[in-house]
Amino acid sequence: MATSDMNQQPTDKAVHETWNLIGARKVEGTSVYNGNGDHLGSIYDVMIDKRGGKVAYAVMSFGGFLGIGEKYHPLPWNLLTYDEGLGGYVVGLTEDQLRAAPAYTETELGNFGMVGDYETRVRDYYGTRLGATRTPGSIGTH
Amino acid sequence: MATSDMNQQPTDKAVHETWNLIGARKVEGTSVYNGNGDHLGSIYDVMIDKRGGKVAYAVMSFGGFLGIGEKYHPLPWNLLTYDEGLGGYVVGLTEDQLRAAPAYTETELGNFGMVGDYETRVRDYYGTRLGATRTPGSIGTH
Repeated sequence: MATSDMNQQPTDKAVHETWNLIGARKVEGTSVYNGNGDHLGSIYDVMIDKRGGKVAYAVMSFGGFLGIGEKYHPLPWNLLTYDEGLGGYVVGLTEDQLRAAPAYTETELGNFGMVGDYETRVRDYYGTRLGATRTPGSIGTH
Repeated sequence: MATSDMNQQPTDKAVHETWNLIGARKVEGTSVYNGNGDHLGSIYDVMIDKRGGKVAYAVMSFGGFLGIGEKYHPLPWNLLTYDEGLGGYVVGLTEDQLRAAPAYTETELGNFGMVGDYETRVRDYYGTRLGATRTPGSIGTH
């Protein structure tokens, strides 16, 4: 290993991946599309359950899509399916479903800890509207 | 919501957290210490199991610690315990254990997909040396 490389950070995010694993750094920034292939936004963060170590939500930023301004949508991780052709995640949500889905502004996002109904709202919304019996798909599969 | 905020990204990583959840963006960059409180490095990435959506490893960068140059150590997520006092994660590893643990250079990290024995090496090492029966702790708890 060359000493000149010692303090360099890897810059190619595309590489932090194996057949089974994907780096959160690669997930962040990945585009999100709806079922019609329309670009909705991109993934901003990945929320991990502290105790169990399981990914609970991907927080997507929707930059002004649908005229609602920049909003952050926590989406259940198993709602995301990677589409090789699009090079991004597809969520099977209609405009109406997205519009009604729990979303937070930048300020609200900064108060997640104080938004008491955050997890309940997200779980209830997707559990009820999109089928609590939905089988988790090949989530995040690249 | 002010229109001037529309394209702003939240900059305070500290806030993306609830009692139960923590954002990968907050985990990234968090300091890692050994049991004596010595600073070892920081978390570079979080590797997620694509199918199950479970965090498998936290990749830590150890900048020249122990004289081994910049190395990236995939550590099982459940080895990390958050220490309020230190403001970072503690891993109960001795110098010898760390020295012998699977680690990758920047170049090798870029070839995770081609490092066939990557997951096997990490699992075997920590499973065997540090106890396969170890109870997962309060991982990542802030």
